Amino acid sequence: MQKQVKYEQAIKTKYPEQVVIAIAKDKEGKANPVTLGWTMIVSGEPAMMAIAVAKGHYSAKTIRHSKCFTISFPSSDMAEAALFFGSRSGRDTDKFAEFKCRVEPAKKIDSVLLYDAVANFECKLEWQKAAGDHIIFVGRIIASHVNTKHKKRLYTLAPSHRMGPAGK
Amino acid sequence: MQKQVKYEQAIKTKYPEQVVIAIAKDKEGKANPVTLGWTMIVSGEPAMMAIAVAKGHYSAKTIRHSKCFTISFPSSDMAEAALFFGSRSGRDTDKFAEFKCRVEPAKKIDSVLLYDAVANFECKLEWQKAAGDHIIFVGRIIASHVNTKHKKRLYTLAPSHRMGPAGK
Repeated sequence: MQKQVKYEQAIKTKYPEQVVIAIAKDKEGKANPVTLGWTMIVSGEPAMMAIAVAKGHYSAKTIRHSKCFTISFPSSDMAEAALFFGSRSGRDTDKFAEFKCRVEPAKKIDSVLLYDAVANFECKLEWQKAAGDHIIFVGRIIASHVNTKHKKRLYTLAPSHRMGPAGK
Repeated sequence: MQKQVKYEQAIKTKYPEQVVIAIAKDKEGKANPVTLGWTMIVSGEPAMMAIAVAKGHYSAKTIRHSKCFTISFPSSDMAEAALFFGSRSGRDTDKFAEFKCRVEPAKKIDSVLLYDAVANFECKLEWQKAAGDHIIFVGRIIASHVNTKHKKRLYTLAPSHRMGPAGK
């Protein structure tokens, strides 16, 4: 049976929520990672994914500038990196310099991949459109990578950014 | 370490993937539920969610017609309903008539809520835009509901629609 409640209460039922790290370079060539829970696949053929990035955030600026981005699925042991990349702004921080996290160059776009992630998807920006206080960026996937070792994805398990594997 | 592979292989790392059931009425007033994994929150203030629905599918037609839809988080014991609603077309099936599933009227839009779901969100269609072989529908949430009992969300755990709770 359903009971009407405020949105803020109802949305607490969303967990576990997937975590991705989106990466794009700014105009100085600095790769800027940002942690996001608001992402989905949007097309099978051609393969496309979407992310929702807060308006005015530096990450939105880097994607608009470089017109391409990586979507990385961090592994369940990357909670600390995900928390760091999600809580700082690239406007005043070189996140990859401050938080050591192995990267390697992307193959088809001017971005980087996360060496220890479960998977990395190289995306070319297809379109963007505002939705409320965020911007939806849709990317066409032009190269895909997986970790040579078996890894589990990282999820947010509960409010206050408690993260870990979804299945224990 | 990353290894480049085909997209089809890389995307198999996505599990567990959240499941939602979107519901909209067609022009005969028949409520049509469809099971989707491709969904995300897109805005906090105002609260908005997006879903990606295959072009040409009956569900896309019902949303375009009624300009509103429910996003329901099915509970972990609703795998059978989710599978049924995701594998039939509303064009030739009255899914709620064929698969018994308790519903109740939505409060603010002309749609229904799933009585046994973890949560239900009533959405007014804000905008829609094609992305590859799907259409992204963005809805503004105007009413939210939760189950009076504690329930776990349903996830797809592996390919071939194996569904259940994410955490065992």
